[in-house]
Amino acid sequence: MKRIRYIKPTPNPEVAPEIQAYLQAHAAQDVEIDVVCVSSGPKHLESVYYEALAGPEILRLVREAEAEGIDGVIIGCFYDPVLNAAREICQRMVVTGPAQSAMQLAGMLGRSFSIIIGHDKWRLIMDENVHKHGLQHKLASFRSVGLGVLDFHKDPEDTVVRMRQAVKLAIEEDLAEVIVLGCTMQFGFYKELQASYGVPVIDAMLAALKYAELLAEVRNQSGWYTSKITSFKSPNPQEMLDWGL
Amino acid sequence: MKRIRYIKPTPNPEVAPEIQAYLQAHAAQDVEIDVVCVSSGPKHLESVYYEALAGPEILRLVREAEAEGIDGVIIGCFYDPVLNAAREICQRMVVTGPAQSAMQLAGMLGRSFSIIIGHDKWRLIMDENVHKHGLQHKLASFRSVGLGVLDFHKDPEDTVVRMRQAVKLAIEEDLAEVIVLGCTMQFGFYKELQASYGVPVIDAMLAALKYAELLAEVRNQSGWYTSKITSFKSPNPQEMLDWGL
Amino acid sequence: MKRIRYIKPTPNPEVAPEIQAYLQAHAAQDVEIDVVCVSSGPKHLESVYYEALAGPEILRLVREAEAEGIDGVIIGCFYDPVLNAAREICQRMVVTGPAQSAMQLAGMLGRSFSIIIGHDKWRLIMDENVHKHGLQHKLASFRSVGLGVLDFHKDPEDTVVRMRQAVKLAIEEDLAEVIVLGCTMQFGFYKELQASYGVPVIDAMLAALKYAELLAEVRNQSGWYTSKITSFKSPNPQEMLDWGL
Amino acid sequence: MKRIRYIKPTPNPEVAPEIQAYLQAHAAQDVEIDVVCVSSGPKHLESVYYEALAGPEILRLVREAEAEGIDGVIIGCFYDPVLNAAREICQRMVVTGPAQSAMQLAGMLGRSFSIIIGHDKWRLIMDENVHKHGLQHKLASFRSVGLGVLDFHKDPEDTVVRMRQAVKLAIEEDLAEVIVLGCTMQFGFYKELQASYGVPVIDAMLAALKYAELLAEVRNQSGWYTSKITSFKSPNPQEMLDWGL
Amino acid sequence: MKRIRYIKPTPNPEVAPEIQAYLQAHAAQDVEIDVVCVSSGPKHLESVYYEALAGPEILRLVREAEAEGIDGVIIGCFYDPVLNAAREICQRMVVTGPAQSAMQLAGMLGRSFSIIIGHDKWRLIMDENVHKHGLQHKLASFRSVGLGVLDFHKDPEDTVVRMRQAVKLAIEEDLAEVIVLGCTMQFGFYKELQASYGVPVIDAMLAALKYAELLAEVRNQSGWYTSKITSFKSPNPQEMLDWGL
Amino acid sequence: MKRIRYIKPTPNPEVAPEIQAYLQAHAAQDVEIDVVCVSSGPKHLESVYYEALAGPEILRLVREAEAEGIDGVIIGCFYDPVLNAAREICQRMVVTGPAQSAMQLAGMLGRSFSIIIGHDKWRLIMDENVHKHGLQHKLASFRSVGLGVLDFHKDPEDTVVRMRQAVKLAIEEDLAEVIVLGCTMQFGFYKELQASYGVPVIDAMLAALKYAELLAEVRNQSGWYTSKITSFKSPNPQEMLDWGL
Repeated sequence: MKRIRYIKPTPNPEVAPEIQAYLQAHAAQDVEIDVVCVSSGPKHLESVYYEALAGPEILRLVREAEAEGIDGVIIGCFYDPVLNAAREICQRMVVTGPAQSAMQLAGMLGRSFSIIIGHDKWRLIMDENVHKHGLQHKLASFRSVGLGVLDFHKDPEDTVVRMRQAVKLAIEEDLAEVIVLGCTMQFGFYKELQASYGVPVIDAMLAALKYAELLAEVRNQSGWYTSKITSFKSPNPQEMLDWGL
Repeated sequence: MKRIRYIKPTPNPEVAPEIQAYLQAHAAQDVEIDVVCVSSGPKHLESVYYEALAGPEILRLVREAEAEGIDGVIIGCFYDPVLNAAREICQRMVVTGPAQSAMQLAGMLGRSFSIIIGHDKWRLIMDENVHKHGLQHKLASFRSVGLGVLDFHKDPEDTVVRMRQAVKLAIEEDLAEVIVLGCTMQFGFYKELQASYGVPVIDAMLAALKYAELLAEVRNQSGWYTSKITSFKSPNPQEMLDWGL
Repeated sequence: MKRIRYIKPTPNPEVAPEIQAYLQAHAAQDVEIDVVCVSSGPKHLESVYYEALAGPEILRLVREAEAEGIDGVIIGCFYDPVLNAAREICQRMVVTGPAQSAMQLAGMLGRSFSIIIGHDKWRLIMDENVHKHGLQHKLASFRSVGLGVLDFHKDPEDTVVRMRQAVKLAIEEDLAEVIVLGCTMQFGFYKELQASYGVPVIDAMLAALKYAELLAEVRNQSGWYTSKITSFKSPNPQEMLDWGL
Repeated sequence: MKRIRYIKPTPNPEVAPEIQAYLQAHAAQDVEIDVVCVSSGPKHLESVYYEALAGPEILRLVREAEAEGIDGVIIGCFYDPVLNAAREICQRMVVTGPAQSAMQLAGMLGRSFSIIIGHDKWRLIMDENVHKHGLQHKLASFRSVGLGVLDFHKDPEDTVVRMRQAVKLAIEEDLAEVIVLGCTMQFGFYKELQASYGVPVIDAMLAALKYAELLAEVRNQSGWYTSKITSFKSPNPQEMLDWGL
Repeated sequence: MKRIRYIKPTPNPEVAPEIQAYLQAHAAQDVEIDVVCVSSGPKHLESVYYEALAGPEILRLVREAEAEGIDGVIIGCFYDPVLNAAREICQRMVVTGPAQSAMQLAGMLGRSFSIIIGHDKWRLIMDENVHKHGLQHKLASFRSVGLGVLDFHKDPEDTVVRMRQAVKLAIEEDLAEVIVLGCTMQFGFYKELQASYGVPVIDAMLAALKYAELLAEVRNQSGWYTSKITSFKSPNPQEMLDWGL
Repeated sequence: MKRIRYIKPTPNPEVAPEIQAYLQAHAAQDVEIDVVCVSSGPKHLESVYYEALAGPEILRLVREAEAEGIDGVIIGCFYDPVLNAAREICQRMVVTGPAQSAMQLAGMLGRSFSIIIGHDKWRLIMDENVHKHGLQHKLASFRSVGLGVLDFHKDPEDTVVRMRQAVKLAIEEDLAEVIVLGCTMQFGFYKELQASYGVPVIDAMLAALKYAELLAEVRNQSGWYTSKITSFKSPNPQEMLDWGL
């Protein structure tokens, strides 16, 4: 039995049950999912400022999860906020981000992928992430649907219309062969889009789950885990105690 | 139950049982491993010429595996020979390569990785693969141990001495944080090296297994599979029949 | 006198005489051209799978040519299949590919070039080749005409209409300054296109001929030939004998 | 008169007066410097985790500074923490980081530069920053002196010995033509190093001051300021009020 | 008091007074501007050939300026002609180019910038400069207005209409967040464009002035000046005397 | 019969006969070589400043050669000075540079090449040229022998000793598979080095000759010549007349 936790980095506990059920339905047989939510902070992280504000609270939940013996956590935002910091502070628990997971998977399923985003503003961080993972040569395009994170589930029919249009243009104009849904709050839409357009449509939340399962498995089986010798060496515990962190 | 097959692209059936046992010991609970071997051709693929010769026979085994209902195959060489061709010809079965799998995994476990190779000659193809996957900014170095593919298991003690030296230099001189064993025939050595040096040492054969399990799982669960609209569209079946392929 | 051979990697002997005459008409005075054709295999190599299947037969013809004392061979497909393998296995004979030759020439004749292709599927391999040769910063675009390899000479008038449209868009929309015809079977069309649009239009088959002449010349004159110390060192002859290759 | 504030992102108020005097001594005539310090958090930011923890408190001081009418702030850490977030949240005040400033300046003063760092661990973030600014082709090397941030001023003589050794190797082995001191706490050392080695040695704290003066000047004079149309558009003020941010 | 000189690399002395006044109006308080003009040569440098012809005369003026004790010179052309040569030959005087200055500034003010040029021909040199400075990932587009250098001030109303159209397309189609005016003879237009479109519009002539002030300041204050150890080491003075240069 | 002219960009007429004989001995049968020399200017171009000074005189000789009906010129310096300008101003005559020619040839003969240079100062321009031609992934290293351009033929025995050492290190330490002699004044040394080390050693002067023959041939035969539609469009002849150029 492995326990994987989805950390929602915004205080929107009302969607937690739906996310929990969604993830559990896609989890491996021996995996138990729970969802925790930060208790305060911005309700979406579209802004770089908001993303920075959310960091410490996400990391508090990461450390709490490791202390509880959780096997893996998913940081539930396509910006992959504090992903490196979380991997540095952990000693045993695996951590995944939706962007890294979805883009790596997409890169294996086709020559090129497009990322469906809400607003062009999101490109600042996402484009940096594409480069960090070395996938710029596989990025066909970003396609924006003109919706904020909190809008995706307000009027699902309208959302679907917009997403369909974006996916269609990505395939026809940008020659995308794979679609990545560039926001975890686009969860639940991939199946219909995939059926319509005949290309893989990656739900980033689920991709992060599958990579968490993978990383937990290789850790258990082969001892492969974040290298702790240099870049991701955790800070000195005594120092942290002294400083009250 | 999923069936995953390791295709050994050289006619060395004598090592098949050992590989089968090794992979089975690392497979997920619901996964059954078998190993098949090409029946003729060069006994190692260190040369580009040999690699090209081995292609059709590997692809014959790939098609045979798909016809048998196998869920996934691993092409058992760190050059990842005919990986794209195999993904193009398949309609349902997943295909992984040790290099793509091991390097992507390594990239998630540290800032940089080194690849332990047998001879510097191998760099030609491997360096191209590093670039194809966009991981050149994470590559700390190649380190050669001066052994051919067929030598690794001849004198395991000597092999270990050489590998230890290469790993040590990669860590100390090149600042590698993760080690990738750049030949499937280096299987079996990772645990000892990992224990000695305190960094993850990725056995590429096992990495390919784990990615095969991952790709088979996301295909079953979410329908995510090689995009068939353009680059990886399989050739026309009637055409293939007409041409006797 | 130098002998240069065009290896047609598909069993379409009916076009061999036309290709022979075309190449001979463009060859240097001291160069004699012949054309050989593989005897079996797929009739076009548009698919990655087909390309891999054709490899061994192409290489058999390469070795045969070297044994006959041919000075240089052209591998007659814009994917440049087994180009590295052919250069590795040869000891004296030069080998060129249409893509490497045409793209390098195009890069010297203008700031940017576009490649006219048949189908977007071809981008998978061609884009990798552009990167291998470091010419991505000079690539203005790929422009597809919606024809397969075997279609180019079926209805030449229709082909010309399509190619003219693609060339026009490449120049006007993508600011291409040079055009590369991205399939050897587009041979024969460059003069008319060049006259119409006032930009160099590179016939890749001819480019490969000119580079074969160049490489044979510098080998004869200065001893410059594929470096045999590491990456392109030929496999061990005894080993090949033992393995019946 | 312009007011520029140095935000020390760690609670080490004891060094504030020295930094204030140092910056004031290097400021333009019409510039008044003050130094503020976060009130809590880690005492150095060498760890990625610490860097993330420090973010919100730095941003609180950034907003406070803008509210006070400060013209520009320097975020006093060579990781350039929350630089983008600070530029996004501000409407009028300029923000600079030591890394972006020092590296851009270094890039104008020579073909290549080396960055003197404390520990190799720092490369994770710094290497990402080098790539973000597109300066990887100018980076000769990182050279580590084996000291933590808090150690640089403990035994200045020992620090100088170590820095001299690193600078010497950077120049002789890595062919660096310019040296960048990769930690703001290396302030005060550049003059002596520069005199000894005859190459520009960039004090990153001072570089950030000069760029803050530059950005404040072009804002005042020509209205050139962070583009607010997309990526750096500040979050909705009403939303921030509603969420208590 | 600092003296900064604008070197107009074409013999168009009639615009010198206007440029002098324009620059003086934007200069720092302690900066005195003068403008000198080459006495012969092509009247614009749009062609690569013209640019090369202008080199020696520009460099003569650069040396003359240094001999006169000028603090900094601006080479007044967006191709940044002989920028490296000028920095190499000088021993004390700073030298800036409009392209390097404007692009670096633009890169700090937004995620992406577009350069408004006169003709597509200009891309050859400018694109090389973008790559030299490592800013290709920030370049949204070049947008051409179809005017030569000498046309910009002939019919300013028409020029503005064309520039407005180009800026609008750069913002809307290419998602530029900052605009760079890619010719010094576009001076005087930035304010109106900036007011209309709400994005920073960088006048490259002024950017070069501000960078000249910056470089002169850091030279005076901290001794930071072009590294003279290798790449930018000035040629041997005796050798120059002997050769009459 | 084709006439190819070597333009020596420095006033060293005493070496012209030797160069003429050397080139003629390596020219194609139908090629006649002559050598012309600029009449004034610096005696070597190691400095960027010198390179800029030499430009107009080189271009005057280029235009003179075209007026005389010469088929192709070689600009005799490994910096490839004014290569683009020369291609722009010519309408019929081909122009080659030693660096572009030698590096492209080297790239076809091995996985990697090293360039043997005189002083590290030369890297500034050469490294930019490597990037312009997209060959940075094939560059193993620059190796400096500590000699100036004018020194290479002063004490040939000493030169050979130094070159041998540099070639040895390039092969053993940097894994170069091909050597490029990075100065035209290293002519005459390649054969001995090649014989000793068993790798191709490219004499850049000869490489430029072979590429000039190639470009002249494809121009004559297929009409392939520098694209004149945009980047390399020659300046307006009337304008040049009016301006006395």
